[in-house]
Amino acid sequence: MDTSNALLFIFVAFLAAKIGGEVMERLRMPAVTGELIAGIILGPTLFNIITSQDTFFEVLAQLGATFLLFSVGMETKLAELKKVGTTAASVAILGVVMPFILGYYVSILMFASSIEAMFIGASLVATSVGITARVLDDMGMIHTQEAKIILGAAVFDDILGMIVLTLVGGVAAGQLSYLNLAIVIGESLCFVAIVVMLGTRIVRYASGKREVRFDRTTGGAWAVHYSTRAFHRDNWLNKLVQKQAPFVVILIVIFGLSAMASEVGLAAIIGAFFAGLIFSDTKETYELEQKFEPLNVLLVPFFFVVMGARVDLRNVTGVVPFAIVMTIIAILSKLIGCSLGAVTKGERTALIIGAGMVPRGEVGIVVAMMGLTMGTISLDTYSVIILVSLATTLYAPFLIKTVIKAESKNGAQRWTTRRSRS
Amino acid sequence: MDTSNALLFIFVAFLAAKIGGEVMERLRMPAVTGELIAGIILGPTLFNIITSQDTFFEVLAQLGATFLLFSVGMETKLAELKKVGTTAASVAILGVVMPFILGYYVSILMFASSIEAMFIGASLVATSVGITARVLDDMGMIHTQEAKIILGAAVFDDILGMIVLTLVGGVAAGQLSYLNLAIVIGESLCFVAIVVMLGTRIVRYASGKREVRFDRTTGGAWAVHYSTRAFHRDNWLNKLVQKQAPFVVILIVIFGLSAMASEVGLAAIIGAFFAGLIFSDTKETYELEQKFEPLNVLLVPFFFVVMGARVDLRNVTGVVPFAIVMTIIAILSKLIGCSLGAVTKGERTALIIGAGMVPRGEVGIVVAMMGLTMGTISLDTYSVIILVSLATTLYAPFLIKTVIKAESKNGAQRWTTRRSRS
Repeated sequence: MDTSNALLFIFVAFLAAKIGGEVMERLRMPAVTGELIAGIILGPTLFNIITSQDTFFEVLAQLGATFLLFSVGMETKLAELKKVGTTAASVAILGVVMPFILGYYVSILMFASSIEAMFIGASLVATSVGITARVLDDMGMIHTQEAKIILGAAVFDDILGMIVLTLVGGVAAGQLSYLNLAIVIGESLCFVAIVVMLGTRIVRYASGKREVRFDRTTGGAWAVHYSTRAFHRDNWLNKLVQKQAPFVVILIVIFGLSAMASEVGLAAIIGAFFAGLIFSDTKETYELEQKFEPLNVLLVPFFFVVMGARVDLRNVTGVVPFAIVMTIIAILSKLIGCSLGAVTKGERTALIIGAGMVPRGEVGIVVAMMGLTMGTISLDTYSVIILVSLATTLYAPFLIKTVIKAESKNGAQRWTTRRSRS
Repeated sequence: MDTSNALLFIFVAFLAAKIGGEVMERLRMPAVTGELIAGIILGPTLFNIITSQDTFFEVLAQLGATFLLFSVGMETKLAELKKVGTTAASVAILGVVMPFILGYYVSILMFASSIEAMFIGASLVATSVGITARVLDDMGMIHTQEAKIILGAAVFDDILGMIVLTLVGGVAAGQLSYLNLAIVIGESLCFVAIVVMLGTRIVRYASGKREVRFDRTTGGAWAVHYSTRAFHRDNWLNKLVQKQAPFVVILIVIFGLSAMASEVGLAAIIGAFFAGLIFSDTKETYELEQKFEPLNVLLVPFFFVVMGARVDLRNVTGVVPFAIVMTIIAILSKLIGCSLGAVTKGERTALIIGAGMVPRGEVGIVVAMMGLTMGTISLDTYSVIILVSLATTLYAPFLIKTVIKAESKNGAQRWTTRRSRS
């Protein structure tokens, strides 16, 4: 490989991704959308600068996906799931079931194969609430009940999305007999269970979390912090002499779990996600966010720009109509599913929550990448999934604002009516 | 490319590098030596796990080299060069000229081609004083005059080494006519001059360094710091809305200068080095070390492990004798050259400085990589250079300690003699 040429391409891709991100951020859209669009522009549809032949982009994209999913996992505190409450749980579950089933059947109606339809369904499952949080924040609603339910449901949703992906990936990898299916599902669940249960325990033990918990009951926040540090001198991670030893060990675990996941037939990134999950409790202790941020700033844009560059819109008639239909399905299925899940909280709240859960993001794109890498979905289907992710994210702010305004007008009317009655 | 397989290899390589680094650090040797040895073990000589066919390792190694040289450059403050003093300068210059000339002629005597001999000479030029600093620190000598001269000379030495590499690389890339040679040298010098002069000015302007300078004459250190922050609100970098904007811009500059360097026929990493140089003044302002450390922890080990894995010792008779001779040349030429440069400071000081400048390191390995990538040096010559880097680094601590002890015994004797006389 001509590495000097590689650096030129890396420069162009990185620059384009960051310019795209900057432009979209200025429009108050997530940087991700800009990075994807930059990729589509650099891809075969227009400039054909990034092609799927460039293996060095594959590696960078794969590393980007790995650290992206580690970070997604790290944001998902298992302990917080207990607090999420039944509403958030039912929002998440219905918001996963509806899009998957609707996506699956509509895809089959539109002549996708059964496996492809499963991937499309899976890609519609996971919500990316970054943009929702921003819109709610802009409208001064970030501390409302709706926002809390949305953020809680999104955590749950990520895990459900990963489980769906694990199952779908397993089914696609195995032969489609019921026995193999059962084996694959069993294997996947075992992997997840072992990693989560053993992993969190080992991490807690190694980083002395138990001691911290003990202190939390006796001292205040400051005491906790102090005791963590004191305890750390004894834990085995600190016996390593090298620079940044805990960070190094976590990197090793990420690569190890990714490799292990792909050895048992799952997507490597699933391993990275669960690595994030098991370290999410030690996030503050080792300043993980601060350490992983530079890696994410460098590597994640390569994931999105390369994923965008794989979109091929030269076959417009094969992609665009399907993409439009699937976008409508994606929006309606989440809106209806999640609203149903929150219906006990009243119509207004339910609709805001439904609208807030509409944007898809990283996980959907990861599903598409996995399908394409495994050779189970066509390039057209891949392009459809990316466009749906993009479209739902770009549309969501308008939908959320519309729902909030319409509802507050209704609410105001109702309030006015009630007031005039009293 | 099978990316899932790639992750397994990445895991193995990263783990091996970090274990190697940990073992050597415990022996109070630089982690680099452990990473190189891990690479040699994983390479064709023994396990053949990392082979040069794996392009993903190339990319990771190239990125590692890029960030490594950026960091080396960042440590090299141009402003500090003025303070280095004439002794450090003469130590650096003689310590560059002697190894280059001796390395060149001895290589030619040992049947290397003229171009190969130039690469070997260039690889012997740059000192890596990390291990020296550690040994002097261990012996309580880090604040002595010797240590200051060594550290000053090493800064100067890095830049001289880069210039030698630039020239040698240029000569190797061009046809060997005098006209082409002149063009290449001119081009290289122009690149360096433009980057350093324009670059530092632009960076200073963009980050508001001029204001800081102004303040430095009126206020104290604290006032400087304060005014920097105040000014920063106005500078254009802060007008970017995206996360970590200055860090992103610096990454873009690194990739841009690397691509530019390789476009004008230089090694890409030379661009990265000069990017580091022009940002070295803004290091504290943007907390660059803190941001680049995670990148280095992740990527630099891949550089060393991959460089180690390219060493092929199956042809023992073709490599080992040459490596032994060149190690002796490498040690003697630096010891003599640098001692001569510091001869005005007295015999004891001169010898300690000479011994302290012996270890070679990163830059020598970069020279070897460049030669191999350009196809101008053979695999055997490559292996020789890596072994020489390794051997000088491993031997240096013993040499330094021996010199210090022998000299302090002499010194003590002389002192005792003088005392008994009085």
